[in-house]
Parts: sequence; C-alpha cells; structure tokens
Amino acid sequence: MLRGIGDDAAVIRHPAGQTLLLTTDLLAEGIHFDLASTVLEDIGYKAAVANLSDIAAMGGTPQHMLVAVAIPPSRSSFEIEQLYRGLMRACRLHGVDLVGGDTSASRHGLFLSITLTGTVTPGRALTRDGARVGDLIYVTGTLGDSLAGLTLLESIREKRPVANGGKNQRHRRYLIDRHLHPTPRIKEGQLLSTHRLATAAIDISDGLSGDLPHICEQSGVGAEIDETSLPLSPACRAYAAACRMDPIRLALTGGEDYELLFTVRPTHRAKLDRLAQRARCRFTLIGRIRPKGAGIRLKKANGASQRLAITSYQHFHRMHTTVQEATWSR
Amino acid sequence: MLRGIGDDAAVIRHPAGQTLLLTTDLLAEGIHFDLASTVLEDIGYKAAVANLSDIAAMGGTPQHMLVAVAIPPSRSSFEIEQLYRGLMRACRLHGVDLVGGDTSASRHGLFLSITLTGTVTPGRALTRDGARVGDLIYVTGTLGDSLAGLTLLESIREKRPVANGGKNQRHRRYLIDRHLHPTPRIKEGQLLSTHRLATAAIDISDGLSGDLPHICEQSGVGAEIDETSLPLSPACRAYAAACRMDPIRLALTGGEDYELLFTVRPTHRAKLDRLAQRARCRFTLIGRIRPKGAGIRLKKANGASQRLAITSYQHFHRMHTTVQEATWSR
Repeated sequence: MLRGIGDDAAVIRHPAGQTLLLTTDLLAEGIHFDLASTVLEDIGYKAAVANLSDIAAMGGTPQHMLVAVAIPPSRSSFEIEQLYRGLMRACRLHGVDLVGGDTSASRHGLFLSITLTGTVTPGRALTRDGARVGDLIYVTGTLGDSLAGLTLLESIREKRPVANGGKNQRHRRYLIDRHLHPTPRIKEGQLLSTHRLATAAIDISDGLSGDLPHICEQSGVGAEIDETSLPLSPACRAYAAACRMDPIRLALTGGEDYELLFTVRPTHRAKLDRLAQRARCRFTLIGRIRPKGAGIRLKKANGASQRLAITSYQHFHRMHTTVQEATWSR
Repeated sequence: MLRGIGDDAAVIRHPAGQTLLLTTDLLAEGIHFDLASTVLEDIGYKAAVANLSDIAAMGGTPQHMLVAVAIPPSRSSFEIEQLYRGLMRACRLHGVDLVGGDTSASRHGLFLSITLTGTVTPGRALTRDGARVGDLIYVTGTLGDSLAGLTLLESIREKRPVANGGKNQRHRRYLIDRHLHPTPRIKEGQLLSTHRLATAAIDISDGLSGDLPHICEQSGVGAEIDETSLPLSPACRAYAAACRMDPIRLALTGGEDYELLFTVRPTHRAKLDRLAQRARCRFTLIGRIRPKGAGIRLKKANGASQRLAITSYQHFHRMHTTVQEATWSR
C-alpha cells in the first residue's frame, strides 16, 4: 500500500502482470448476524473470512481490504473497536492490509460492507463455469462443522438438553471454533490455480446443496454426490450421534464452512492426490459431474439415487427455522 | 473486465504500470438520503458520483464498480431496478463497468455500499497533504449550487413561498440538476495529475468550510479564503437574491457540489491558466495557504478577516436543521 486511510481513495501498487480480483459483501444486522447472541469481534472475523474465501475460490492471493460500517446510536465505540479487532485479526493471518473505508451513522441496525482485492496469474482464475461431464467433484476439509457448532452454541445459550449431547469438551470447542473462526482455503485455491487442476470452483457459504447448483447452472451440467463420501469430522459425527441428528444433512445443508467445492478432470486425479499430499491439503472426492438432464442427485448409502434438495442457507436465521426441521425431526 | 457478476469475485485486467486506486462509500436511508422525497434513480446516480468524485480528487481514471445493496421488505424490485438504472447511467457517462456486488435483505431501511477502482500514473496521485505556505487555493466550477437546488426542491415540495424566489425556470432547472446530478470533475483531476500542478487536492462533498480543513490538517498549514473570489453561478446568485439568502454562505457551507479544491505553487499559476483554458476547465483562485498558526480565515468583502467557521454538511438532514439557520436567518 502506498497510501491508505485518510485520503479520498487508497493508493495501491498493483503487482506487475497480475490480474486483479474484486469481491464485496454487505452484512446486515438481523439478517446475517444477531448481536444478541454474537460478539462483534466474531462478526468482524467471520465477515473478513467470507471475503477471503471468495478470493480463495478464485485461486487468488488476497491483498487489500476496505471496510464500511453504518453504526446505530445504540452501539458504543468500544463495540466498533471490537468489530475492527476481529476484522484485523483475520486480515493479519492472511497478510491482508486494511487500506480504507467509510463510517456512517445508521438509524436502525448495524451494517457492514467489506471489499477485498486479490491477485491471480492471468488466465488462472478459478471460475464456476468450466465443469464438464465426467469431471470429479471434490471438497476441501470437512462439511457440516459450522452448522453443528451453531446449533451447539444455540443450545448452550438456551440451556436446551441437546447441549449435553456434545459432552466431549474438545469436540465442542472444535465445532464452535469452526463456526466462529472458519478458515478460508487460500492455500488450497492457490494450489488448484497454480497447477491448473480445477475446471470449476466455488466456496461453500450456503451449504453444499446450495452452492453445487451454482457450478451446475453456470457450467450447464448435472451432478451426482455420493453421500457416503462426504467428509465429516469426528467431532461432527460424535455430536450428531449424541443429538440424534443426521450428519449427512449437516454436511449437505450446513453453510459457512467456507470449504472449497471444485471439479477436476479424471486424468488429473493422480496429480491432484500427489500435490495435495505434499502440500498437506485435505481434498475429498465426493461425486461426479453428470449430463445436465440428469439433474443434481444424491446417491444414498443403500445405493438408491434421489434428487438432491436444493437449499439456501439462512445464516443465523436458519437456527430459528430450518435447522430444527432439518436436524431435529429426523 | 475479464469476468464480472456471477462468480465469487470479479476478474479484471489491470493496466500495466498503473497504480490502483480504491474507494468505498456506505449510504444509509434516513442518514444520507430520504426516500420520502427522493426517487431511487437519483439516489443511485448521486451515490455513483460521490465515488467517481473521490477518484477524480486523486487525479485518477475510474474503472470498475462493485455495488452492494441491503433491501428492506417495503421496497419493490422495480424500485431496486431504478436504483441500478441511476448507478449505471452515471457509470456509462464515465466509462465505468459495473462488475459485481452483493444483494441482501435488510430489516430496516435501504443501505447502499459502493466500491470504485481507478488507475493513476505512479507517483501522480493527488493527495491531501502536500499544500505548502504560499500555495494558491483553487476550486473547479461553482459553489453552493447543490445546496441552493436542495432548498429549492424542499420549498417546492413543502409549497413554501420561497419557491417563488427562483422564478427563472432555467435557473431553477439548473440548480435542481446540480443537486440531483452533480458532475464528478474527472477531466480536471486528470489534468492536475498529468501536469503535476496540484500540491494537494480534495473533492468538496461536505462544503468548502468542511473540506478545506482536511487539507490544512493533513498538510500542517493554515489558509485564507477571499469571499469575493468564490465562484457563484448566475442561477445561485439570482436564487439567493430572490430568497434573501447570503450566496457566500451557500458557497462556503453547501455540500455535494463535488467540485475539486486544490492547491498550486505560485510559480505554476501561468501554466495552470494556460492549460485550463485549452482544456476548457473552470478553475477559480479563491485564496492562499498560510502558516498553520494563522488558522483558517475568511477575508470579507470589506477587507476584514475573520475565523472561518468549520462546518460539517449533514446531507439531506441539513435541510431540516442547519440550512434554515444558515440561510434564512440572515
């Protein structure tokens, strides 16, 4: 950065020969977060991660962040400092500079708008539209942890008996941390971009069953996911078992894991495995791209195949509505 | 643009060797605009101009825009289209591509966040901190028109007798247009940057008496403005006379003119005049940079000098509060 906060615009030296990536997110109180149950530092951290994850999903390197906040009269300057502390913490971990922004009053509710820049080698950005029939479908990390962490936090707050389900302290801490402090998969995205391994990629913010349709739609293809292949953490499995939830549903519908979902030519499978092992990246094969006419399907453990219900993750609201239907009424 | 709306991030080819400029603004309903009295197309247009003007004030060329909107349930999709129509219209006029954004629900009120990129030749960005004692102070265009247009609109809406003040239809249209559709001074900023003419620059969004202090503070200097030199449009003069307002106060305190305020070494005066004439830019000499200890002063028409009251423009709110004090109680 050549010049940041305090002038009309930030002045930035852009690396020669690199393509510029730009992403923005607007988060609204009562829609994306609930200040009654979340501290502002965690909101700031996660808002930064949501944007870092967008750059990761393009195979890029995050660079500079702009933050605009509209602050209602009810919020103290201490709380706003907390929000920035969370933002800065996520930025520091990934070498991102906070270079500017805007602060405004708000009549009702806190609004947070983040813009993040990134760089990527020309021609190497990972997009959503390159998946072809026969490609293998992969995800990074494990799925469903964030939603499990959210229901766990919620049950602790409401002193519901389900809290007893996750008795293992280490598991509980893991799930809650995965919900509050998810990891943007920047290294993984860069590996896929550098070695031209992914034909399409997206980050999972709305759940696998919410984000896979974006790749299918933009690539003009269908897909089949094998439910027995979905990567589940031991903590998620244990928590789901204790609460009599279906872990597969957590993995399919849970949002905010910020894992990458990507497709790979079958001929690149061995290369992907080799590079993943060397770079210590966890990539799991979960299905295959099918012709568009086949739709988006889920292969069950018993071998039967059914249409995958497309869901849209409602972030913290989910907890008051669909989560209960989806996970408690098994 | 290589890729825009519909992926995780926009992918943009950045011009080789150019420095990147980044600016963002968050506009809140009830703070920056009032939907009871303004149509969304005008809000969109002006929101785009506010950002274009920030790039102009850096001497840059605007390039790509990201728009995030949080929409309350009370707003129809037609209204949101109107908002985008206004944004796009301003973008088109200045060769800017709308490359992405985010749409979200809002519980209360409409929020609009804009991020704009620009480019500038390395080392040529106009900043706020380079003004030196003895530098000449200039503004582009004319001052006070936007505030005059706002009070005119307000009086028309409230059917107040002041509406009769501005009987000249052409003048009325001019002032209202200057309020609703201000011009970002991009050509002027580029001229100052290309020829290294400005030692400091800022755009006037909060009024001359609100924005001059930013240059003085960041440059560590004082200033003296000559009130008889302030550039006033014939329409503003006529309207002020008819309404018995002080046009000087309009020029000093009126915000949202989006003119540039800049400082120039005395040795560059002739060159500035020559280039301005050739490029048909209106630059008016309004004062001189003084030592910091002198503060920020206003030289009155009678030769007396007084402290310049520092004001902060409250955008549409102003009309319900300070405008009346400032302009009606002369």
